[in-house]
Amino acid sequence: MKKVAVVGATGYTGVELLRLLVNHPHVQVSHVTSRENAGTRVDAMFPNLRGFLDLDFSAPEVEQLAESDLVFFATPNGVAMRSAPALLAAGVKVIDLAADFRIKDISLWEKWYDMQHACPELVEEAVYGLPELNRAAVAGARLVANPGCYPTAVTLGLVPLIEQGLVDLDIIADTKSGASGAGRKAAVAHLLCESGDTFKAYGVSGHRHQPEIAQTLSKLADKPVGLTFVPHLLPMIRGIHATLYADLKEGQDLAAIQSLYEQRYQHEPFVDVMPKGSHPETRSVRGANICRIAIHQPQGGKRLVVLSVIDNLVKGAAGQAIQNMNIMFGFSESTGLQSPGLLP
Amino acid sequence: MKKVAVVGATGYTGVELLRLLVNHPHVQVSHVTSRENAGTRVDAMFPNLRGFLDLDFSAPEVEQLAESDLVFFATPNGVAMRSAPALLAAGVKVIDLAADFRIKDISLWEKWYDMQHACPELVEEAVYGLPELNRAAVAGARLVANPGCYPTAVTLGLVPLIEQGLVDLDIIADTKSGASGAGRKAAVAHLLCESGDTFKAYGVSGHRHQPEIAQTLSKLADKPVGLTFVPHLLPMIRGIHATLYADLKEGQDLAAIQSLYEQRYQHEPFVDVMPKGSHPETRSVRGANICRIAIHQPQGGKRLVVLSVIDNLVKGAAGQAIQNMNIMFGFSESTGLQSPGLLP
Amino acid sequence: MKKVAVVGATGYTGVELLRLLVNHPHVQVSHVTSRENAGTRVDAMFPNLRGFLDLDFSAPEVEQLAESDLVFFATPNGVAMRSAPALLAAGVKVIDLAADFRIKDISLWEKWYDMQHACPELVEEAVYGLPELNRAAVAGARLVANPGCYPTAVTLGLVPLIEQGLVDLDIIADTKSGASGAGRKAAVAHLLCESGDTFKAYGVSGHRHQPEIAQTLSKLADKPVGLTFVPHLLPMIRGIHATLYADLKEGQDLAAIQSLYEQRYQHEPFVDVMPKGSHPETRSVRGANICRIAIHQPQGGKRLVVLSVIDNLVKGAAGQAIQNMNIMFGFSESTGLQSPGLLP
Amino acid sequence: MKKVAVVGATGYTGVELLRLLVNHPHVQVSHVTSRENAGTRVDAMFPNLRGFLDLDFSAPEVEQLAESDLVFFATPNGVAMRSAPALLAAGVKVIDLAADFRIKDISLWEKWYDMQHACPELVEEAVYGLPELNRAAVAGARLVANPGCYPTAVTLGLVPLIEQGLVDLDIIADTKSGASGAGRKAAVAHLLCESGDTFKAYGVSGHRHQPEIAQTLSKLADKPVGLTFVPHLLPMIRGIHATLYADLKEGQDLAAIQSLYEQRYQHEPFVDVMPKGSHPETRSVRGANICRIAIHQPQGGKRLVVLSVIDNLVKGAAGQAIQNMNIMFGFSESTGLQSPGLLP
Repeated sequence: MKKVAVVGATGYTGVELLRLLVNHPHVQVSHVTSRENAGTRVDAMFPNLRGFLDLDFSAPEVEQLAESDLVFFATPNGVAMRSAPALLAAGVKVIDLAADFRIKDISLWEKWYDMQHACPELVEEAVYGLPELNRAAVAGARLVANPGCYPTAVTLGLVPLIEQGLVDLDIIADTKSGASGAGRKAAVAHLLCESGDTFKAYGVSGHRHQPEIAQTLSKLADKPVGLTFVPHLLPMIRGIHATLYADLKEGQDLAAIQSLYEQRYQHEPFVDVMPKGSHPETRSVRGANICRIAIHQPQGGKRLVVLSVIDNLVKGAAGQAIQNMNIMFGFSESTGLQSPGLLP
Repeated sequence: MKKVAVVGATGYTGVELLRLLVNHPHVQVSHVTSRENAGTRVDAMFPNLRGFLDLDFSAPEVEQLAESDLVFFATPNGVAMRSAPALLAAGVKVIDLAADFRIKDISLWEKWYDMQHACPELVEEAVYGLPELNRAAVAGARLVANPGCYPTAVTLGLVPLIEQGLVDLDIIADTKSGASGAGRKAAVAHLLCESGDTFKAYGVSGHRHQPEIAQTLSKLADKPVGLTFVPHLLPMIRGIHATLYADLKEGQDLAAIQSLYEQRYQHEPFVDVMPKGSHPETRSVRGANICRIAIHQPQGGKRLVVLSVIDNLVKGAAGQAIQNMNIMFGFSESTGLQSPGLLP
Repeated sequence: MKKVAVVGATGYTGVELLRLLVNHPHVQVSHVTSRENAGTRVDAMFPNLRGFLDLDFSAPEVEQLAESDLVFFATPNGVAMRSAPALLAAGVKVIDLAADFRIKDISLWEKWYDMQHACPELVEEAVYGLPELNRAAVAGARLVANPGCYPTAVTLGLVPLIEQGLVDLDIIADTKSGASGAGRKAAVAHLLCESGDTFKAYGVSGHRHQPEIAQTLSKLADKPVGLTFVPHLLPMIRGIHATLYADLKEGQDLAAIQSLYEQRYQHEPFVDVMPKGSHPETRSVRGANICRIAIHQPQGGKRLVVLSVIDNLVKGAAGQAIQNMNIMFGFSESTGLQSPGLLP
Repeated sequence: MKKVAVVGATGYTGVELLRLLVNHPHVQVSHVTSRENAGTRVDAMFPNLRGFLDLDFSAPEVEQLAESDLVFFATPNGVAMRSAPALLAAGVKVIDLAADFRIKDISLWEKWYDMQHACPELVEEAVYGLPELNRAAVAGARLVANPGCYPTAVTLGLVPLIEQGLVDLDIIADTKSGASGAGRKAAVAHLLCESGDTFKAYGVSGHRHQPEIAQTLSKLADKPVGLTFVPHLLPMIRGIHATLYADLKEGQDLAAIQSLYEQRYQHEPFVDVMPKGSHPETRSVRGANICRIAIHQPQGGKRLVVLSVIDNLVKGAAGQAIQNMNIMFGFSESTGLQSPGLLP
């Protein structure tokens, strides 16, 4: 039985980690921290956990966290990088669900996240926790940078094409996210009355997930990948849908591409390539740690349209973090992550 | 390993049964029937089950169903009563999630359901499957009538008061249900554009769940219970909220009532009495087999207001059916039902 | 052409006033104030007004407001009472859409609103702006207290019964409101992810609208009216549905009650008594200044169930304020308020 | 006062026409037809119209319709083409809100709509009713083909670029629509429980609006325009958002493009070019006859991203039809269409 702690568990990523961890057979949640809510029962804030977790929030003290085998940071950007060095030094594994360790280019990171990095020396060591690309590295990692939600959906949708060099490296990712991607913080823009019953794009001129995705794809392609990344806000809570446009370099038919995807992901427990002609729905992955993908070739042309859906809080955050934890601890990768999506 | 079959699995109750059963450690789903969809893969209709259930829909033939140890009927009203006699005769246990065996008074049933009962002789034998009232009887039952969704929420909210004879037997149940209560059938009234972003009452002059609730409460009180039952339709998918109004016969303070509820339900795995002052949210039970209850006494008066929430598809249908199955098979009652609600 | 100002127009009541006022043929919006946003274009915050209103927010200065013929206060509670005396002294009419002048009993007001009243001497003069009860007084008023949203729906649903003394004066109002009733302010509880896709009661032990409704009904009955008031939060933006329970003193049939309602409201332009058996939907009044009512008598018993719906932002706030303004200015009462609800 | 009839008014386009027409100062609705509902009051089906329209549905008989000056067909595809010839012969103007007269190439139409055209001779005469392109022709038309909802949003978003020949003629339109676009017909796929709280693409391999848009753009460009058109279904009722991707032929900066759009649409009453950096929200056009557009140039590259929103039932259907009617009758083009969007 491993002991794990969740730092910053008052957000949606945090409560989702707890929802999944309380039923994990090989770990025990030892600390759940929130400076602001220290002393309050966790299930007073999140009543869905009543009966599952008998803990109060505690203040995030490194000495206490160091009693755990692994610490999840479900904190805003810029928090994990302050505590990670001490925890690693104490022999504790760290998974950061925020962005502190995702971008290898420190100056690029500092530009997009508008702060100075507190431990650039750890960035190189950190493993980008997309198991479908970096499983072996995750297994040996002390520090995992859990990928962003959009990057997970977009990258998994493109990996087979980029790995095989089949498409022009100028890609469009038109992405749509449920409101939980914006986190659990008081903000007029995310009130039900502001983001319910409406739809809009945001950050069209620039979004932090663009360089993260471009970094992964460029490394995979071994050359720079152009990416137009346009996110939109859906009037619903969970779910990301990425609609990806890529132009084939040479005429290849859809059957070959479909076959390529099926082979690439045939042993992946959490990537599901759907049959030809499918249109994956976000609800099919609601609450589940799975990415579903379908490929289309409209009018048989050179342009592929790849559809990729995840639950942003699960395969896009907490579920993927637990998948990484399973790999790091040597557990079966699917442990605690075997639930079908909640449909309807 | 017990074998179970689900008849009529193309509806929401059916797919919810499957979602819960595929992870149940002691049962195997052997048949999933739908006359109309025979030959189609179940996960083609319900993609959330991809990877979890490798079955086609089959036609509902009694001989095949009789290979199972237990058959769930997730069918419209009036279907289970036609097949139950043969299945019981073959030694198969039956749980009907529809209304065929809920009302003991045959003529009352026939009036509300507008059809002739096909096997009135079995109605008396059938056990009303609310474990919190009838656990022992369920354990020995061959045939269980799984309660309606509204009746589960309303009855559990009132049991302590009625059992102790504390309130006038003239009760108001103002109830609100998500749209999945209406089932998965083509109907203009339940389109997103008709029942989304709006709210209304329905069936105010009379609703089938009124006699079902009145029957249970009257039996408990050992005298007729008057019940004004007003259902409403919520612009969301899952969840029932019952707001119950009952007048105390004598002045009793809220602390005593709170204590009564806590004692009555202290050993119940699936009823959660919340702290005083709570307002249970339907989302706290989304996808979970739990009824959460809170009690209020506005202005310290004689009128109690009890708030009771369930997920209509889980504790109000499929989850409760599996709870009953666990009891019937002698499994631990919580087996396969131990997930926190999906929040947010 | 009358000049009107809107103070505190950054909230939902404010923008709704503007939406309706820009098309009013006899008034011109002269000032729209917001201390925080002074200098910003109004239509930069509310793009639906692009092309309709060529104004910046300005700071709320009494001297400037005094250039108007009438000032609407769409502010939080406790603001209007500070400026009203000076405006009235300057000959400007005032309509307060908040609660400052609704409750005649100052100490009761101070208890519920938790502040000292700044101008108790004006409270007596203020007219409670429910035209269906107080039309003549509104016509002569300098200062109108625009009713709360719940009080409008509940009161209009009960007026005929109370006026005629037909029911026991112990009434239950089970009410449900869309999220816009909570206003446009940053608060975790009202995020889409917190109040979307879920339903709950709130304030069951006590809510400010209870004394407001009780005051109106008690005055109408000329004796104290007992009222159990339970509000709930709907996962949608606009709309209030009140489900009202009242017990007939003597056996009267539904036809007589229906007829009574139809007669009471036959000349009211903004109250619609629906045919027997109806279930009014909130969407039928979306964006419209109308209250729709239906009456039921379940099982022909002594208990009446009255269903009453409004758009909380229109007949429950901005529309009713304009209706009052029309009366105060001697315009036709319906001017600028003649749009059907937006359905679907 | 002109007399107009609405054929097929039981759908969403029909009731939206009625909502707008009842307040139009220069027309009177003389007939509202529905074969199935003949004899029923229109406001019994659409209670938002109570008090606004005192008519029953009647059967659609050409002789009666011929008493009107203009007939709107708010019918399924393939209906208008059967009655239009007789009505035109009787001197009645016709606006078809369905697709019968939109595609000039009859065989292309017959392929996509899977039926034989009943009056190909009228297709050439029919004017494609996008006033921003064809105002003069609409003014003289007897028969107007009202554009589809997606085509309106996409075309208006691209017109300035295509007219000026600034972009490569290989365009991507990633479009998202509210559920009302699917119409008011019983279908499991459009239940609240199926299309609420989820998001998906559909028709990626081919959709009827692709050839309609391509026809308009190709005529404008005077050469074939390649268009990848991917529609998605939003979990809300009203609103279309088109995200358009086009590559500039030569380096032009955003300021120049912004200026081009502003000039192109400066006299258009129903196209609103928003300031640079804007992200139009569908709610800003809810219920309003307006298309709002914003232009972005991510990272200053060669790829433009144009965002275009409409209410699919208004500028995408009924509002545009009335705009066309106003032009055909010589009324001021904005008559009856001057309401701000309903926000929130």
